[in-house]
Amino acid sequence: MKFNIPPLDQALKADLTSKINHKTKPLGSLGQLECMALQIGLIQQTLSPQLNKPSILVFAGDHGIANAGVSPYPQAVTAQMVLNFLQGGAAISVFAKQNNMSLLVIDSGVNFEFEPHSHLVNAKLGLATQSFLDKPAMTLETCALGIQRGADIVQSQIDSGTNIFVFGEMGIGNTSSASCLMSLLCDLSIELCVGRGTGLDDEGLARKTKLLSAALQKHSHNIEANNNEPMQILATFGGFEIVMMVGAMLRAAEKRCVLLVDGFISTAALIVAAKVQPSILQYCIFSHSSDEAGHQRMLKYLDAQPLLNLGLRLGEGTGAALAYPLIKAAVNFLNEMASFESANVSTKSSL
Amino acid sequence: MKFNIPPLDQALKADLTSKINHKTKPLGSLGQLECMALQIGLIQQTLSPQLNKPSILVFAGDHGIANAGVSPYPQAVTAQMVLNFLQGGAAISVFAKQNNMSLLVIDSGVNFEFEPHSHLVNAKLGLATQSFLDKPAMTLETCALGIQRGADIVQSQIDSGTNIFVFGEMGIGNTSSASCLMSLLCDLSIELCVGRGTGLDDEGLARKTKLLSAALQKHSHNIEANNNEPMQILATFGGFEIVMMVGAMLRAAEKRCVLLVDGFISTAALIVAAKVQPSILQYCIFSHSSDEAGHQRMLKYLDAQPLLNLGLRLGEGTGAALAYPLIKAAVNFLNEMASFESANVSTKSSL
Repeated sequence: MKFNIPPLDQALKADLTSKINHKTKPLGSLGQLECMALQIGLIQQTLSPQLNKPSILVFAGDHGIANAGVSPYPQAVTAQMVLNFLQGGAAISVFAKQNNMSLLVIDSGVNFEFEPHSHLVNAKLGLATQSFLDKPAMTLETCALGIQRGADIVQSQIDSGTNIFVFGEMGIGNTSSASCLMSLLCDLSIELCVGRGTGLDDEGLARKTKLLSAALQKHSHNIEANNNEPMQILATFGGFEIVMMVGAMLRAAEKRCVLLVDGFISTAALIVAAKVQPSILQYCIFSHSSDEAGHQRMLKYLDAQPLLNLGLRLGEGTGAALAYPLIKAAVNFLNEMASFESANVSTKSSL
Repeated sequence: MKFNIPPLDQALKADLTSKINHKTKPLGSLGQLECMALQIGLIQQTLSPQLNKPSILVFAGDHGIANAGVSPYPQAVTAQMVLNFLQGGAAISVFAKQNNMSLLVIDSGVNFEFEPHSHLVNAKLGLATQSFLDKPAMTLETCALGIQRGADIVQSQIDSGTNIFVFGEMGIGNTSSASCLMSLLCDLSIELCVGRGTGLDDEGLARKTKLLSAALQKHSHNIEANNNEPMQILATFGGFEIVMMVGAMLRAAEKRCVLLVDGFISTAALIVAAKVQPSILQYCIFSHSSDEAGHQRMLKYLDAQPLLNLGLRLGEGTGAALAYPLIKAAVNFLNEMASFESANVSTKSSL
């Protein structure tokens, strides 16, 4: 599947900057909100951008590696949390409701057969990935299918009017996937990429690191033989939810939507997407810096300026949903604030 | 005027912590939101806190020092911005509207006679303070009157059902006041307390520092003779808006409201209030770390953990209004999220 994400057209930059600078406030005094107003104006190619039907997509999938001792929670929690999302009891459900954002759960491959539900999309790629301790998580064909399905889901939301997306996820074991992807794609040792996930103790962290290190070693020949091709790396170490997120992100940027990136897993998916289409980064807002070790390093690798730093490490898209009002504020000040001229406010003088 | 702010009663702490820890999320994974949920539960003495009728109070006042070369904007901008607040064109107007917060502007002493307006309170202490380069900004009597009026305004909001306040301000020249208050109350040299305000250049910053240093020297004998009494310091260097904010904050905490502290000026007022009633700090949420030099030092002095760090330096209460959805999210997750038991989600196991 091919995507074509052009760099942002900068033609409107001077006009947007002028509009921002004439608002009734000291120059630059809205800090990162001003950067976002400019960015969103450039993404939408307008001086009056709008955020329409903000959509939270939570991709859920199970991992063969989950039962190998990399998480303190059993694999069954993935399905239980999907039901919790749909019933409104999860953190992301509460924050979506607070901010009037729609929440869609994508069953990318959870080891459970759900009843149909209006907020659940059945897009199963399987019941769980293979454990990449033994063999690749999935075939290249399944990986390509997942990318396609993720893109299609985003396309249908765009067709309904959405122009801003939150990419969240759920999958017991998926910090292990993300750590391996990060290690290979950012060229960092696995020790710098592994964290405590949902709450490993020191012993658990050491075990996880050892297991992932062995897995990277096991597949290294195949990865290198394929010239570190991102799709090969993704198929080998990815999760179904991560793969579908990659496709979803690529399509969202291709269609000039605003992408709200969440935490460790969401950023790992973005790093894969950015290897394929580097300009995708210009469409991204980085919602927060997670407490998961490794996420700060990812953000540094991407030269990203996260909006929040609240010690969050929950995933589900929660950091991005919490940051959404700030993005709305950036658009609102650009559209609604008076200018010095319109409000008859004196401008700065030279003393 | 006497205030009586007791330390937070910790009796509910164990129950609140247990409620937070049983929510369907890894332990501690909502970071600072969990701290706020606990704090607000303790302030309101309930396991199910509510935020009612959030109120933004913007105190505006003019400063005798404004025309001495400490700000690149003329004094007239204070009144012009008050009109802009009321007409909905200022940043705080836009953010208040976005977050469904009421906005009340308190004319604490602006050098302009405003027409009556439903969102404007006339509480003038004068048309501008004296320039503290020459003499004390106001008398102790005026200072006491301002504290009383600030408290009364908060009381009337509380009587209407408000239990959470944003304290914002407007006043050309008021970073000079705040810098002097900070220097004396935090015992820091004026160089560590002075910043660029609305946008001074290097030369302007050097001039401002020199002027404030001379003012501190000029009044040092009187301040020391009064044993560094906070009210003496406040009357000498304060602004009318700062004085009224101090009274407003003290009453809000006394009545067990949540206090949302904004930037440099708002925090300076809080430091004065905390010298009088140290327990006030337990009722405060620090909304952001401002780009104004000195604010980070204030936060460090108070051992405060700000929610946002977005390079804002606008005042008006904008940082606090932008942070408000995060505080709402803290209360909402506590009230609305399912527990592991209620959602039938498996808990963490020992591996």
